[in-house]
Amino acid sequence: METFLAELFGTFIMVLLGDGAVANVILKKSKAENSGWIVITAGWAFAVSLPVWIFGSVSGAHFNPAVTLGLAVIGKFAWSHVAGYLVAQFIGAFLAAVVLFLHFYKHFEATDDPATKLGVFSTGPAIRSYFFNFLGEFVNTFVLLFGIVGIVSQKMAPGLMGLAIGILIFAIGLSLGGTTGYAINPARDLAPRIAHALLPIPGKGSSDWSYAWIPVVAPILGGICGALTYMLIFQ
Amino acid sequence: METFLAELFGTFIMVLLGDGAVANVILKKSKAENSGWIVITAGWAFAVSLPVWIFGSVSGAHFNPAVTLGLAVIGKFAWSHVAGYLVAQFIGAFLAAVVLFLHFYKHFEATDDPATKLGVFSTGPAIRSYFFNFLGEFVNTFVLLFGIVGIVSQKMAPGLMGLAIGILIFAIGLSLGGTTGYAINPARDLAPRIAHALLPIPGKGSSDWSYAWIPVVAPILGGICGALTYMLIFQ
Amino acid sequence: METFLAELFGTFIMVLLGDGAVANVILKKSKAENSGWIVITAGWAFAVSLPVWIFGSVSGAHFNPAVTLGLAVIGKFAWSHVAGYLVAQFIGAFLAAVVLFLHFYKHFEATDDPATKLGVFSTGPAIRSYFFNFLGEFVNTFVLLFGIVGIVSQKMAPGLMGLAIGILIFAIGLSLGGTTGYAINPARDLAPRIAHALLPIPGKGSSDWSYAWIPVVAPILGGICGALTYMLIFQ
Amino acid sequence: METFLAELFGTFIMVLLGDGAVANVILKKSKAENSGWIVITAGWAFAVSLPVWIFGSVSGAHFNPAVTLGLAVIGKFAWSHVAGYLVAQFIGAFLAAVVLFLHFYKHFEATDDPATKLGVFSTGPAIRSYFFNFLGEFVNTFVLLFGIVGIVSQKMAPGLMGLAIGILIFAIGLSLGGTTGYAINPARDLAPRIAHALLPIPGKGSSDWSYAWIPVVAPILGGICGALTYMLIFQ
Repeated sequence: METFLAELFGTFIMVLLGDGAVANVILKKSKAENSGWIVITAGWAFAVSLPVWIFGSVSGAHFNPAVTLGLAVIGKFAWSHVAGYLVAQFIGAFLAAVVLFLHFYKHFEATDDPATKLGVFSTGPAIRSYFFNFLGEFVNTFVLLFGIVGIVSQKMAPGLMGLAIGILIFAIGLSLGGTTGYAINPARDLAPRIAHALLPIPGKGSSDWSYAWIPVVAPILGGICGALTYMLIFQ
Repeated sequence: METFLAELFGTFIMVLLGDGAVANVILKKSKAENSGWIVITAGWAFAVSLPVWIFGSVSGAHFNPAVTLGLAVIGKFAWSHVAGYLVAQFIGAFLAAVVLFLHFYKHFEATDDPATKLGVFSTGPAIRSYFFNFLGEFVNTFVLLFGIVGIVSQKMAPGLMGLAIGILIFAIGLSLGGTTGYAINPARDLAPRIAHALLPIPGKGSSDWSYAWIPVVAPILGGICGALTYMLIFQ
Repeated sequence: METFLAELFGTFIMVLLGDGAVANVILKKSKAENSGWIVITAGWAFAVSLPVWIFGSVSGAHFNPAVTLGLAVIGKFAWSHVAGYLVAQFIGAFLAAVVLFLHFYKHFEATDDPATKLGVFSTGPAIRSYFFNFLGEFVNTFVLLFGIVGIVSQKMAPGLMGLAIGILIFAIGLSLGGTTGYAINPARDLAPRIAHALLPIPGKGSSDWSYAWIPVVAPILGGICGALTYMLIFQ
Repeated sequence: METFLAELFGTFIMVLLGDGAVANVILKKSKAENSGWIVITAGWAFAVSLPVWIFGSVSGAHFNPAVTLGLAVIGKFAWSHVAGYLVAQFIGAFLAAVVLFLHFYKHFEATDDPATKLGVFSTGPAIRSYFFNFLGEFVNTFVLLFGIVGIVSQKMAPGLMGLAIGILIFAIGLSLGGTTGYAINPARDLAPRIAHALLPIPGKGSSDWSYAWIPVVAPILGGICGALTYMLIFQ
């Protein structure tokens, strides 16, 4: 039960801070409005470092179905716990979206463009193309899991792991995030999208369901391939 | 006495560097003018890391009544020391505001807008709404105390704690700070506001006392709830 | 064989993330478009930290012929392994360029300027001058190898080396990178340039072969001199 | 002799990277042109971290007469070594200015404003006022020495000190640097100013000797007071 709550609260903190950084930058009249990609990518990096520091020793700090499934496939996580982790991750991400909706309510009111409002909750492509958007999320999550499995196999001073994993997220955003917004996490994308559909966001538009499968399927497949590649070659 | 002076000097350094970053960015003719949210949030992050590194082993590095009260409520800090810590924090924050007034005196002269001058000392809402501004400061300080109690319960290599706490402040600013300016600390907001009212700042305007209670009350309540939530669930 | 694959995959990850940061910032319609030098330099910094964390204990984490040759000249790397390392580095860098071409394909289509497209793959001078461009790359790689040999001779907590080497790359970019784009690595520059010449990049122009020798020769000479200088004086 | 050379090379690397970051941002046609205060302050932060990592165990990594004198006054550095350290620091800073002149030569040619060219070498006030500029440099170097003496008295994992000292420099720049450009170091300001006067910089103007005493005298006095304050109260 404690690991379930750690995954739930950890994903909650992560999505609250990560999607919060997006809201901070793209919603109108925020003091951080238009402060740019460095704020969004730093926000997402630390959004991951912090729950790793807070909960890493409790649950292993997945916060991401692509991580949970990738580690299960390579035998580093018990399949019997997978379903519970996924449920906790989706609940945590959904609750974070609800709190963000309240936290930035006046700024949703002040923003006209419906696509911007959706952008707080879920990712969307810079240039729409099922093939290349799928490829992009696949590559990004390949790097994520390849990196995680590689990094956690090294010896690190206590506490440095949280920084290193945050920098991995930072790097994926800085370097490869501009094409699809780097979901790299089905829970982070789908649960807030459902929240977007359900919540009474002022002036909201479509939840873009035709794109919703890409940030779910591509990260899972890319993550499994990334984890497998590292395992087969280097362990 | 040494812990009292550590809280006083630690809060002094924190507010000097934190409010200094705001002054650096928003006052006219500063070399850092208009350098943006990343400078303000990085400035506040390191403004916390440094006194944690300098004084962490002396006083526990609270520098914030919301931290002192939050830790006292969950039994991690003696109530008998609370009043002394709070006095030290308010004195330190007030003195920092005085030094900032002198350091940036020519730039206060060069700046016309009175609200900008107040913004160096105290926070104000991006969109005024008692309900949502209170909620924002409550959520931000909930995350602060939840994070602090969680992080300090983990094992870390000596010196890393200062970095992790700084990154926690960084993250709150990057992700949730754009709505109210993230006071998350009654001493950081109220003591410089009193200094703003007392000091002969050229061309100053209102100290906005109608808003002043929000960055005092909301952080205290949010901080207590954040500390309690972590304790009840994870310890 | 494992060290060969570590150098190959490490250089792949490094060039994928490093050149990816450039693509993210300079190609049209990227969400990170025009996000500036801080994104490019942070991207390259973490592009180096991550494979150092992942592969440092396997291969020593060169990922750069200038590093391999510099360490060989001062007797810190066996000459018998040099050729294998160089081959692995060039293959890794070439494969990264191919993946980047696919990842950003729609953005290459959306970008008109051929020089911008080449800039994703290879460096070019801000102001063309064989003498000063050579000097620039020489100085930059002198600092790189002087720094690496100096840093690795110090005692560091496990995991910090990856951060320190990343900050060394960060610093070279922030401080000296604006003149030539800081190749400081023959594999990082030449292999993607070959990929640029071979790949069907939409609307591509010249691969600028007349400049290509500078980011190969100057880093090798500068790196050797930097490594020798540290060794002769401080060891 | 090795400590002398460590101070010389350490100050060389520091000024090369620190003033290099300024050149990168303010000189025309640099790829980093106009990339802002975050690049300058990050550049100066890492410009200090790197030689601390490289030479910290050899010479104690002063690289700054205000540090050397401040530590001597509080009895943490032998007076008999002070003169040698200061000579090494001035030589290192001067040589760095010469290399920077060559590295950015074409960009000095491309830049018209003489004050911008001087700004690469030495600091100048945002708003000229002997009283407030002196006060600013005094306060900034007070914080520097108070911070250094405080931080080095704490226990840190090996290698973290270099990061913490770099973050101290980062913070002073982000928060208090916009008024005078935060020289906080007589060698960093005076030696490059002499180089500016001597070198054949294309289209150069005045070396602003009337201001030159402030970034020499104020840092020394502020540094001594900062070191003394920490010692008297906390040790």
